[in-house]
Amino acid sequence: MAYPQNMHSRSGRPGELALLEQIRARAAQSARGGPFAPGGLRLGIGDDCALLRIGPGEELAVTTDLAIDGRHFRLAWHSPESIGHRTLARGLSDLAAMGARPVAAFLSLGLPGALVSDFPGISSKTGKKNQKKTWVERFMDGFFALAHEFQTPLAGGDLAESPLAVADIVLTGVVRRGKALLRSGARPGDLLYVTGTLGGAAASLARLAQWAETQSRTRAANSGPAQSTSPRIPARLQPPLAPHLFPQPRVAQGLWLARRGLASAAIDLSDGLSTDLAHLCEESHVAAEVDAAALPIHPGASLAQALHGGEDYELLFAALPSIRVPRRIADVPVTRIGQFVRTRKGRPKVVLVTVQGRQPLVPKGWEHFSH
Amino acid sequence: MAYPQNMHSRSGRPGELALLEQIRARAAQSARGGPFAPGGLRLGIGDDCALLRIGPGEELAVTTDLAIDGRHFRLAWHSPESIGHRTLARGLSDLAAMGARPVAAFLSLGLPGALVSDFPGISSKTGKKNQKKTWVERFMDGFFALAHEFQTPLAGGDLAESPLAVADIVLTGVVRRGKALLRSGARPGDLLYVTGTLGGAAASLARLAQWAETQSRTRAANSGPAQSTSPRIPARLQPPLAPHLFPQPRVAQGLWLARRGLASAAIDLSDGLSTDLAHLCEESHVAAEVDAAALPIHPGASLAQALHGGEDYELLFAALPSIRVPRRIADVPVTRIGQFVRTRKGRPKVVLVTVQGRQPLVPKGWEHFSH
Repeated sequence: MAYPQNMHSRSGRPGELALLEQIRARAAQSARGGPFAPGGLRLGIGDDCALLRIGPGEELAVTTDLAIDGRHFRLAWHSPESIGHRTLARGLSDLAAMGARPVAAFLSLGLPGALVSDFPGISSKTGKKNQKKTWVERFMDGFFALAHEFQTPLAGGDLAESPLAVADIVLTGVVRRGKALLRSGARPGDLLYVTGTLGGAAASLARLAQWAETQSRTRAANSGPAQSTSPRIPARLQPPLAPHLFPQPRVAQGLWLARRGLASAAIDLSDGLSTDLAHLCEESHVAAEVDAAALPIHPGASLAQALHGGEDYELLFAALPSIRVPRRIADVPVTRIGQFVRTRKGRPKVVLVTVQGRQPLVPKGWEHFSH
Repeated sequence: MAYPQNMHSRSGRPGELALLEQIRARAAQSARGGPFAPGGLRLGIGDDCALLRIGPGEELAVTTDLAIDGRHFRLAWHSPESIGHRTLARGLSDLAAMGARPVAAFLSLGLPGALVSDFPGISSKTGKKNQKKTWVERFMDGFFALAHEFQTPLAGGDLAESPLAVADIVLTGVVRRGKALLRSGARPGDLLYVTGTLGGAAASLARLAQWAETQSRTRAANSGPAQSTSPRIPARLQPPLAPHLFPQPRVAQGLWLARRGLASAAIDLSDGLSTDLAHLCEESHVAAEVDAAALPIHPGASLAQALHGGEDYELLFAALPSIRVPRRIADVPVTRIGQFVRTRKGRPKVVLVTVQGRQPLVPKGWEHFSH
């Protein structure tokens, strides 16, 4: 994910916006500096991935996503497998939004010593091999399970001891030259589509928070330890929590759209529909109307969660009205939820159309754990 | 930097070694999974960079380096410009060690709000524009100054608020297919060379620590704030501290060696000669002898600092004895400091030859701030 958009949505503080604009301006300047062909930079900050020119017919998509304990995940809430899965899923989803095929992942991990030690573990008491996996081993289990599913080798990274758990994921992927799904291609008249359902991640995060709160109160009452770093989520809760704990990046759907050239623009829903649609409109210089009645709301999620809840990792895309978009792509439903229109001065960029009428849809993207 | 080597050197804890071996094994398995051509993975974990196949005649080198406050830098010791410079320099040095030309950088930053806020700043008292730069603006100054020097555009990244300052840098670079300088190519009989001088960074870090300690005592005596996040290092100290604060990656020297095919193996000195030479020997399955009298010790540095001090970011390389290696490459001196020999069971991998005789040179690579 290119960071200006990220931060734009996650924080309204003027200092950060000014910083990001300056970084983007200075980065653009730095890109004009010298000759970078044949491995040249075609697209820098401002989309889901950067694009590097490689060979005659291909481009390399590169994306990086930083996750921090307490902000993007919580050691006390998320199982290590979920954190490993989510770390890779965020990067794969950015590739999906470009229509790129994953080539390799790079993982930088900063971890407190306790999450790494005792691995693989000889018990000091019995001298026998400790069968209990450490936190980081379970993290890698979650990471490699998803990596295997999406045929994405881990090609490198860095590892350091850190008092705070942080994970930075880099994904590289290839896309045929000129076929990448950019944020900037939507035109007035294009129709607006979304894969899968909306609000599922936010709804299951709310359930997770509730569960974690109850656990914490129970521990406090029993004078147990204040925080567990490897919560064991009961089996009955695992399916309803899956949309948040184990989101599925839409790589196959992005590849399908890019191969057929059906989408004029695309973005992945990491920060929430209201925020990510605003990004897409901004980069395409268009406005949009969303039909509330058409939204494929996840069972159990509210309208607000569908509109503003982050981390669904579905694809939001634009297509010409003349294009027949199928109802399912690679086994995932696709729903038409609105259309793009011309921007007008003084008019809101995104409008929500309901039976009560039209109202501005203001970006209220989920700010992870920062609120 | 591929992490197994990193951690191998920085921590002797068996848990970490076992973890790293497992990650490497699982990563290798993940790389065998599917078809990745044409953007295929040629070289994964285990060298200064990973290599991806791009186009018919080129390879893309990718490296990632994680830096954490208190471990790789200290907010109270290092100026923001130095931290920005060092962040990029670490990545560029890994490209240099592969003989790759920089294409683009990606930067993930996690920063406490105070280092970002008030930017660009309207003073709440006067309502005028605040002329004082924030920490992050000064960080970007240091970053972009080096990026400009090495014609490396910033192409993307991520930004998040974090209670702990962390910076993860990703560098991509191109190298002609088959021309990359690997760690694995040294053969018995090859001679051992190093660029520049050794121990300068460790010696200037010791001076920096001394200065910071004095500052801290003075502040305590005056009951001032316990820690400053933007130390102002006096002008007289800046030149002697430069080797640590503003190291120069040897990109031109790496490119020169790769273009001419003169080096049979190379590594950059990030963890210290004793540690990085052991890595090179391990990957090449050879042993080495270092001539203590030949070492180009930095003025003011001790022999121990030259042998074990990290972050000099010089290039250590092997060349056939028949090759005439020049005394300078791109204005930087090159010194022959030893030779490679066959490994023998029960014999130390690296030996230091002095006038007193031969002694094992045990890896004592600098562990950043972890001790």
